[in-house]
Amino acid sequence: MPEPFDIIAVIEPKPGKANRVEELLKTTAKAVQANEPGTLRYQVNRETKGDAPTFVMLETYKDQASLKAHGGSKDFKELGRAFKEDLLAAPMKVLFTKAVGGYASKL
Amino acid sequence: MPEPFDIIAVIEPKPGKANRVEELLKTTAKAVQANEPGTLRYQVNRETKGDAPTFVMLETYKDQASLKAHGGSKDFKELGRAFKEDLLAAPMKVLFTKAVGGYASKL
Repeated sequence: MPEPFDIIAVIEPKPGKANRVEELLKTTAKAVQANEPGTLRYQVNRETKGDAPTFVMLETYKDQASLKAHGGSKDFKELGRAFKEDLLAAPMKVLFTKAVGGYASKL
Repeated sequence: MPEPFDIIAVIEPKPGKANRVEELLKTTAKAVQANEPGTLRYQVNRETKGDAPTFVMLETYKDQASLKAHGGSKDFKELGRAFKEDLLAAPMKVLFTKAVGGYASKL
């Protein structure tokens, strides 16, 4: 797999659980930013409509070791435990992706 | 809705149809880049695993008029028609999103 590489994760909270999920993701993101130099992107995106908004994580890892560090981190494990609090309507969908066309920005 | 705003679209091709979907999205993206100054981001991302990879479009629009121009464009309408060629395993999921945490880049 070419490096760096992207991961896009799709998270679907149960109705009424979105704020709790947002809080957990933002807490994790702060720890990732502070502790994981190889996690080049870790952005929390929230759907702006509906009472069960979908979250989309846009992530980029410098290399496999950086992804391994992320997966093994205390904070990510805590996130995994917290998600078991009956917060999600479906299992988190984790997609390893690559940009194959279009453009990232016109600015 | 604050402007500019993001759209994340999740597209799930039927097995064996991913290359056709990629070709369509990349053709549309070229036209968008050439003809739509208000479409600030239009990036085609393809899952790198599996024979029915998911596509995730990351899009940003300067304002409502720019989104309207995109939706009304000849190219987007052609994409819509082409998608009716029995290419998708599920309807395209279109999410209006906002970044609420984390970071876009450490580079």
